[in-house]
Amino acid sequence: MNAIRWEGDALALLDQRRLPAEQSWLRLDTSQAVARAIQDMVVRGAPAIAITAAYGMALAIAEGRDRTEASTALLAARPTAVNLRWALERLAPLPDAEIEAEAVRIHTEDRAINEAIGRHGGPLLTGGVLHVCNTGALATGGHGTALGMVRSAHAAGRELRVYAVETRPYLQGARLTTVECLAEGIPCTLITDSMAAAAMAAGRIQAVIAGCDRVAANGDVANKIGTYSLAVLARHHGLPFYVAMPTSTLDRRCPTGADIPIEERPPRELTHLAGVPIAPAEVDVWNPAFDVTPAALITAWVTEHGLWQAPFSPLL
Amino acid sequence: MNAIRWEGDALALLDQRRLPAEQSWLRLDTSQAVARAIQDMVVRGAPAIAITAAYGMALAIAEGRDRTEASTALLAARPTAVNLRWALERLAPLPDAEIEAEAVRIHTEDRAINEAIGRHGGPLLTGGVLHVCNTGALATGGHGTALGMVRSAHAAGRELRVYAVETRPYLQGARLTTVECLAEGIPCTLITDSMAAAAMAAGRIQAVIAGCDRVAANGDVANKIGTYSLAVLARHHGLPFYVAMPTSTLDRRCPTGADIPIEERPPRELTHLAGVPIAPAEVDVWNPAFDVTPAALITAWVTEHGLWQAPFSPLL
Repeated sequence: MNAIRWEGDALALLDQRRLPAEQSWLRLDTSQAVARAIQDMVVRGAPAIAITAAYGMALAIAEGRDRTEASTALLAARPTAVNLRWALERLAPLPDAEIEAEAVRIHTEDRAINEAIGRHGGPLLTGGVLHVCNTGALATGGHGTALGMVRSAHAAGRELRVYAVETRPYLQGARLTTVECLAEGIPCTLITDSMAAAAMAAGRIQAVIAGCDRVAANGDVANKIGTYSLAVLARHHGLPFYVAMPTSTLDRRCPTGADIPIEERPPRELTHLAGVPIAPAEVDVWNPAFDVTPAALITAWVTEHGLWQAPFSPLL
Repeated sequence: MNAIRWEGDALALLDQRRLPAEQSWLRLDTSQAVARAIQDMVVRGAPAIAITAAYGMALAIAEGRDRTEASTALLAARPTAVNLRWALERLAPLPDAEIEAEAVRIHTEDRAINEAIGRHGGPLLTGGVLHVCNTGALATGGHGTALGMVRSAHAAGRELRVYAVETRPYLQGARLTTVECLAEGIPCTLITDSMAAAAMAAGRIQAVIAGCDRVAANGDVANKIGTYSLAVLARHHGLPFYVAMPTSTLDRRCPTGADIPIEERPPRELTHLAGVPIAPAEVDVWNPAFDVTPAALITAWVTEHGLWQAPFSPLL
């Protein structure tokens, strides 16, 4: 399963908004179209949007577009995930001629990083594994971060079942994670976000895992809205809570979670579903796309270099 | 706002499945049709289904149907809410000729009970009030239980804002509670269930309120799935958690929450929304309609007789 394909003169993206009903690909040949696709969530997942933005810069050069202007537009597409900035900063000092190759390298490396996270994190998992959002092949360059841990554990023969919370409002759990699990024969049960606590109380869950969009220097984690709730619930039920963290998601310049900008998305994501109204159009809506989980609620950060503990400073 | 209308020879129910898009009424003239409407959630909310079932018995008598058979069918329609049983048991000893009048009395009394709950509970509320499911006029004989507290507080001029969690999978919060608040000019913000913790951490919430479908003798509360999660989150954030409880919802024969039967509903409620597939049809689904909140997480039970504390036994 793959969601990003570089074609040399264009970027092909699997339109994740249409899954699972439809597998359709968009072909983007300008950096502007790439920025719009990130903003509209054609592609999502912190590592995947970093890769996408890197290819966006390769297109900007092919277009002869001003690099600073293109980079600024890509950076503004989504404010919370820091991987986007990380990729653009990695490209910034390179000459035009090297950008495409570096974008391909970012893409390839991401898969290797995920496999390392899976190697380190897989042995932590057994039994019921509660998973939020989608952190699999669709959210990354392949394999996945938190779901990569599951994939590695499953490949190693460990007995487990993913409890995928549907992850309102965008339903990444229902629409994407279930599809990835079914494709690989990983046992998977779909629940609503509101059922997580009941599943824990019923003894169905042995660990909670999540990806991350930005990790502050003190270990606080911004991730998909609902993650913080699961961390509090895990603590209440004495369950471990693991964050799968490629080190490119660590923002050393951000002291704490309070300093992470949290994207708020349009009300329509709550009032409509697939064009169908599910709430009165005139109701007030609060729609933060992410929340912050304090480091104190996190059992371990699973990086490509092994398990980390906060504070990270001695390790950096 | 009203969802149940007795017409002497038939029961008219507002079809709550079609709200907010459409206000359509179903006219039911057999007790069997009433049982089906309860099961299919045309009407929902523990007090409302008790009233509906009582009118179902009035129809059974008009049909000349066997009373025990009709009562058994109504009782089986939904297993968790105890008010249904309470209403049927209240009718059981009465002669045929008195059933209709007693059903009307149950309906009228319910409104008075809710107003008393509002009187006792309203003064507890100020600022942001997190509310799950729908416990308003649509869930009762009028006014509402937990939302009745809000209504009374608002009428008394208290400054508050309802944070309505959308309440997946059936979206009672998004579809019903928002509509009731808008109709009465009560400030209301819609959020997903997964945003409750973030709203608490942001200082937006001062109290959490819920209704109940069955309360065990020790004070454990079965209510709409997601309630338990909110109670854990409230405790973590040092917020009060109030349950609005008409005493007809107290099941003295049920020692603890573990003894309450929890209805599991069809997978399709998670895999489809308004007919649109939002998850692969073949995925495994766990869909409990209710969860149990232990008494220890509840600050007070707001009854028509005033605020109660568990254990209730000295008060019964």
